[in-house]
Amino acid sequence: MSTPLRVALAQVNAVVGDIAGNERAIASAISRARDAGAQLVCVPELALTGYPPEDLLLKEHFLADARAALERLAAETAAIVAVVGYPERAEDVHNSAAVLADGAIRAVYRKQHLPNYGVFDELRYFQPGQRGATIAIDDVTVGLTICEDIWQPGAPLSDEALSGARLIVNLSASPYVAGKGARREQMIQQRARDELVGVAFCGLVGGQDELVFDGQSLVVDHDGTVIARAPQFEEALLIVDVDPVTVGSARLRDTRRRAPAAEARDRVDHLGSFTVHGEAEGEGDAGAARKPPVSPPIAPRLELVEEVYSALVLGTRDYARKNGFEHVVLGLSGGIDSTLVALIAVDALGPGCVTCVTMPSPYSSTGTRSDAERLAENLGVELLTLPIAPMMESFDAALAEVFAGREPDLTEENLQARIRGNLLMALSNKFGWLVLTTGNKSEMSVGYSTLYGDSAGGFAVIKDVPKLLVYNLARHRDERAGGGLVPSELFTRPPSAELRPDQRDDDSLPPYDVLDAILEGYVEHDLGREQLVARGLPSADVERVIALVDVAEYKRRQQPPGIKVTTRAFGRDRRVPITNRYGG
Amino acid sequence: MSTPLRVALAQVNAVVGDIAGNERAIASAISRARDAGAQLVCVPELALTGYPPEDLLLKEHFLADARAALERLAAETAAIVAVVGYPERAEDVHNSAAVLADGAIRAVYRKQHLPNYGVFDELRYFQPGQRGATIAIDDVTVGLTICEDIWQPGAPLSDEALSGARLIVNLSASPYVAGKGARREQMIQQRARDELVGVAFCGLVGGQDELVFDGQSLVVDHDGTVIARAPQFEEALLIVDVDPVTVGSARLRDTRRRAPAAEARDRVDHLGSFTVHGEAEGEGDAGAARKPPVSPPIAPRLELVEEVYSALVLGTRDYARKNGFEHVVLGLSGGIDSTLVALIAVDALGPGCVTCVTMPSPYSSTGTRSDAERLAENLGVELLTLPIAPMMESFDAALAEVFAGREPDLTEENLQARIRGNLLMALSNKFGWLVLTTGNKSEMSVGYSTLYGDSAGGFAVIKDVPKLLVYNLARHRDERAGGGLVPSELFTRPPSAELRPDQRDDDSLPPYDVLDAILEGYVEHDLGREQLVARGLPSADVERVIALVDVAEYKRRQQPPGIKVTTRAFGRDRRVPITNRYGG
Repeated sequence: MSTPLRVALAQVNAVVGDIAGNERAIASAISRARDAGAQLVCVPELALTGYPPEDLLLKEHFLADARAALERLAAETAAIVAVVGYPERAEDVHNSAAVLADGAIRAVYRKQHLPNYGVFDELRYFQPGQRGATIAIDDVTVGLTICEDIWQPGAPLSDEALSGARLIVNLSASPYVAGKGARREQMIQQRARDELVGVAFCGLVGGQDELVFDGQSLVVDHDGTVIARAPQFEEALLIVDVDPVTVGSARLRDTRRRAPAAEARDRVDHLGSFTVHGEAEGEGDAGAARKPPVSPPIAPRLELVEEVYSALVLGTRDYARKNGFEHVVLGLSGGIDSTLVALIAVDALGPGCVTCVTMPSPYSSTGTRSDAERLAENLGVELLTLPIAPMMESFDAALAEVFAGREPDLTEENLQARIRGNLLMALSNKFGWLVLTTGNKSEMSVGYSTLYGDSAGGFAVIKDVPKLLVYNLARHRDERAGGGLVPSELFTRPPSAELRPDQRDDDSLPPYDVLDAILEGYVEHDLGREQLVARGLPSADVERVIALVDVAEYKRRQQPPGIKVTTRAFGRDRRVPITNRYGG
Repeated sequence: MSTPLRVALAQVNAVVGDIAGNERAIASAISRARDAGAQLVCVPELALTGYPPEDLLLKEHFLADARAALERLAAETAAIVAVVGYPERAEDVHNSAAVLADGAIRAVYRKQHLPNYGVFDELRYFQPGQRGATIAIDDVTVGLTICEDIWQPGAPLSDEALSGARLIVNLSASPYVAGKGARREQMIQQRARDELVGVAFCGLVGGQDELVFDGQSLVVDHDGTVIARAPQFEEALLIVDVDPVTVGSARLRDTRRRAPAAEARDRVDHLGSFTVHGEAEGEGDAGAARKPPVSPPIAPRLELVEEVYSALVLGTRDYARKNGFEHVVLGLSGGIDSTLVALIAVDALGPGCVTCVTMPSPYSSTGTRSDAERLAENLGVELLTLPIAPMMESFDAALAEVFAGREPDLTEENLQARIRGNLLMALSNKFGWLVLTTGNKSEMSVGYSTLYGDSAGGFAVIKDVPKLLVYNLARHRDERAGGGLVPSELFTRPPSAELRPDQRDDDSLPPYDVLDAILEGYVEHDLGREQLVARGLPSADVERVIALVDVAEYKRRQQPPGIKVTTRAFGRDRRVPITNRYGG
């Protein structure tokens, strides 16, 4: 085992349910990895079915189809070992990694730590495995783990390292939240140092409904040094040579983790030894000669705002493309939210695939209208103008008798928003376009939106982006373009829904810096009113915001899906009852 | 222990999050039970917080508030033992039953079997308990279990019985599906016979978002005979005398379950012995004299169609009332779906709290319009008429230029439905009414509805009711009224959305008997196309329906909540991805 083990990490963008397509992508990765001289190729967790397949896992025929695809993939594995994530139908169902070699499925490792918190529901579907696993490839011992298995310290990673693994591979599908890449990398570095073992993290990439997977596959040595890193938010095949010798020497020097090795070995199965390049026969130099060393890339990690922006772009692109949409449409109000969504849409799909619609009412200011026009021009997108006054009048007339004697109120404001929603949906129906909605998380939290109005559409791009971050993202994108892309008034004009004369958001809401701080505490950290006030937030605002958030749950339940970027997204992440009198 | 143990089962309608309100209801039950001479009073699973509290359980202060309420309740327990379901914050969080006696919390039993399938997510919140539990009240040993604990055969029920329990109490929150009451009763009878032990099942009642809890608290003796049954779908305090002697004699006669008793006892904690009426001191006759025997009611079980109807009524009433709505509004089309929803709404809230709206278009037939009018008259509800032609014209004009050269299609049909949705929402906004939507499960399955149109509203009463069952329910309700309530043409006219001239549902869908059969197999039983065709369903229809169901997932995700009555409701029950290329 004196020669390096060449490992390929296939950071693929799997599509949920598209077993045939995922099979092709994996087969291609296997082939390219072999061409690159790799002895081992890994694909992410459940890459064969996409992640998360949710209740597709309750269909026997779905599991059978996955198994059939796995068998076909196994037939592709000559002169390489492939470790492939798939759902295993045995006596029970497991989240497993199959070891494919020499044309057959040689062995299976079963995920031990099944996450069932946050966005995860793995205990709904899977039974945990009970045993660690290693394989040997050309005499280098490799430990197998799946995602959550290494987020928890200890076994199985520690057992596998103590059983002789020089490298731990981790097949993963790790949902993105802002900063996740950095935190995950730090965790992986620490695991490597703790157990004196190299770690190869193979991450899924792509958007799936509310989730984005950020990729960023990674190899760290036993000292925690990053020796290879794939980019975030795009597909990659990361090829890296792992040196098995230095790990061994380091362990000889460090006796701390050697004593309990016998016990650890009892908890680990050795699943097989595979010969790929034949170094096992001691022809180390010959083997090395067959594969000149690679210099793997260390892709830079994105700065936080750029990272979030990229997640939004990928999430939007994948939701559209994976659901068969080529073209999107959105209402451009001349406010910062729809501006950001337009920027993201253009980056995701190209300006020719984005139609913006301005739908002025008598309350629309000339400023916002001209900003919308300038932005559309700067972006090079089509802009339609559909004034809504005639429809407002027809609804007013229809309701005049029933509403007689009552003053205009939110009803009439909501009607404007719903007329706009109807127009966008009519465009969607007629032309097959996907409607992007433009509400941000701060609005969504307090119900500052109209159900079936501005929230009508297929994908809510920035539903998990708080208002202050909306500004930062738009400013960042404008700066990346060298400025002048976004009309500067958009950054300075007080936010307004323009549903009545001279309306401003802060007429009915606290200023956004206060609002976002309360929301972060209440929504993301589950703090109560006393804890929020103790943080220095104004008591009256805290009371009001909590009440607004609670009562808006029925609205949020009917929103389209959108991309999770915070630690607590509404939807599959924060699950609260609608009928709920707790109030805090 | 020669005298009977008097047990009170408090079938309360707890409100999620309303800890103070639930505390009052439980305190009242304790007091009434004591007045009735009961030595033991039970309330349902998590009755103190309502069920399911979902992510409220992630708030420390929520758990602390529940604990404080439990302590106040404990102070109410003089001369009675109360077993109260609550979320316990210990080192971890447990779904627990507290034993309150003599003014204090005496002990806690922790639920062992945590369901995490179907509508349940208990492993998201709770850690399972590890030990069975018994208490003794006036020398009668009682075993404690919570809901799922007895749905699985064996421990803890069997261990507790073998440890000497003469009665097993089960605190439950058992979500309704059609026929659940009968199946649950049969299961309880079998458990009693299997372990030779009486079982007292204390069921939650009431509606909570998508779930209805049907109550039907129950006491069976060790022979499985029902000795008391509370009604379904209403609150009750069921008082019953349980004879501890006959159980003991039966066990003396039957040695089958006596041998492993020592091991079983090792898995059960005896949590305490409580003296209430003092029979422990051997003054049996005196104790008996203090409480003349009760003759508990055995409420009849409802016939299946009436049971489903009652669940829909309770679910609607509770969603409205618990969310603060006094009045509901719905669009009355003259079709069977809106007819059924109107019937349910009137039964739930009374005719004075229901407004119906007819919104005719040029495509509405005179037949449906006059049927809607006759129905409203028969029900005694207000009927508003809001013709939609003027708004159709204003939208057509606004879109004329953009749509130039294109034929009318679904776009224009959807616009009609959305104009109606806007009108209903305007009434909701202006008058504070809850909009009930009228789509059935068959439509919802295949996406035969307009997003933000007929599906716009706060509560989707019959979203889980297949079309054929819609007819049965309406016919049943009409018959209960002696006929003549529902215009008879409604049962015979071919279903039509009336969105274009001479439209019929079966222009675009298979006949409803075929459709419902395919949907039952595909949605409720997760069958694939081959299995459906093997059941004799037409292959072309199977293909078409599967494709329609899959592609409509994005629509269903934006529907309002509605009442689960089938084994697989869309929503918290059937969780499939929107982005999903599996197709079957």
